Amino acid sequence: MIGDVDGNRRLLRLAIRKAADEGARLIVLPELCTTGYVFESLREARALTDAGSADAVTDWVEEAALADVVVVGGFAATDGTALYNCAAIVDGSGLLATYRKTHLWNRELAIFEPGDEAPPVVSTPLGAVGLCICYDLFFPEVTRKLALDGADVIVAPTNSPAGRSAETAGDNIGVSVARVAANVNRVFVAVCDRYGDERGTRWVGRSLIADPDGAIVGLPPGNREKFVLADCDFRRSRDKRWPGTANDAIADRRPELYRQWETSNAS
Amino acid sequence: MIGDVDGNRRLLRLAIRKAADEGARLIVLPELCTTGYVFESLREARALTDAGSADAVTDWVEEAALADVVVVGGFAATDGTALYNCAAIVDGSGLLATYRKTHLWNRELAIFEPGDEAPPVVSTPLGAVGLCICYDLFFPEVTRKLALDGADVIVAPTNSPAGRSAETAGDNIGVSVARVAANVNRVFVAVCDRYGDERGTRWVGRSLIADPDGAIVGLPPGNREKFVLADCDFRRSRDKRWPGTANDAIADRRPELYRQWETSNAS
Repeated sequence: MIGDVDGNRRLLRLAIRKAADEGARLIVLPELCTTGYVFESLREARALTDAGSADAVTDWVEEAALADVVVVGGFAATDGTALYNCAAIVDGSGLLATYRKTHLWNRELAIFEPGDEAPPVVSTPLGAVGLCICYDLFFPEVTRKLALDGADVIVAPTNSPAGRSAETAGDNIGVSVARVAANVNRVFVAVCDRYGDERGTRWVGRSLIADPDGAIVGLPPGNREKFVLADCDFRRSRDKRWPGTANDAIADRRPELYRQWETSNAS
Repeated sequence: MIGDVDGNRRLLRLAIRKAADEGARLIVLPELCTTGYVFESLREARALTDAGSADAVTDWVEEAALADVVVVGGFAATDGTALYNCAAIVDGSGLLATYRKTHLWNRELAIFEPGDEAPPVVSTPLGAVGLCICYDLFFPEVTRKLALDGADVIVAPTNSPAGRSAETAGDNIGVSVARVAANVNRVFVAVCDRYGDERGTRWVGRSLIADPDGAIVGLPPGNREKFVLADCDFRRSRDKRWPGTANDAIADRRPELYRQWETSNAS
């Protein structure tokens, strides 16, 4: 809920416990889940950030230690000056990585500064977890980078509003974007989205887990609050061969050509 | 049909006339449509190439002049030594561009040499046409390059066999790959696929035209021989803004960061 950082932090602890109870080992929470998303102003965003948005990471470490899980979630944070749309990967030992969203969407541009650091991939006992946030998924440069850095799964805390043009395009294009990122990189992709209304913005709840074939595992998307759980065998992410062929999704790349192309575009 | 170059060339002339009669201005034919695809051997591929595969381009120029259309299609060609899986863009004035497939699929690796030239974008009276072939679409580096070079539409002569793993992944992942390439680059994508059986390989006929929202325009995909026709307003490809937002699919890229990431991956 927008504006209730303490209440959101409690709900997020409960959500982590519920997910762990149901067997989840890697638990993904939405983008900006401690503050809400639809800020009235930069002033409000700053006040909510100062109200402990980023301290939720400490909660997640505690919950991760209790349940022996890995937790990923999004939150607003400040470096003392600017605000950033961030996400963190934690386990019971503490913070494993933080990330500042590189590609800001619409009204975020008036609130946050974009990040300048590469999206991270961290080793966990479960496998290598790569991290980006929502609109970052629409830049194949991001998901490719995470795959090349060895991600077994790309996790993306997300807030998907209904009504943007992509939503009206046949079936949901955001679902296809995640499935295709999974398929062309032969990794898993886990998107945790929000559901419900917030100050007139409708969140569509298109959480999903896509496998390296681009198939959706776990529950299919639907317009309701839900918990998506899937068994993901990360050995599949480590074998980049297209089954039954002489091809390999990563080894078939032509990076030397891509660099030439990039140079010609830059000139 | 595999092996009947003269017969295929006649059928292709008829197909171009039929498409033009129905109002098509930019006409896309499948990959390797003059020779067929399932070669028994390199020897057979070489014999069929020598039987006039590439001369079909001359037919297409003649048909393009008669109907005042642009034609794109795939064919085998040789430089006197190696064979290449090629495609050409022609209009009534002649050849506008040729391209050698950069990413070869499975048994093509035993027949063809990969191309080393960038996929081309050419100006036509209809708009800027970017060209790649089939499996190239699974490399977002290719479609991004074509969009950055100004393509209004990316055309991809294709032969999609049933039964590869991607085919079994929920709904057809190849359709999603084309839709997502269209959406993240805000261009049109036109895929002309084959339908039918050839020496035990089943072609699924997933021709489609995707618009910059990632929506499929023209006929939906289906397992039958078909002709897909759509009105494509290329002004939509030239406006990269996400409708109703402050965002722009191309201007929001962070190329300076991507270059840093690329360097760290190369080291």
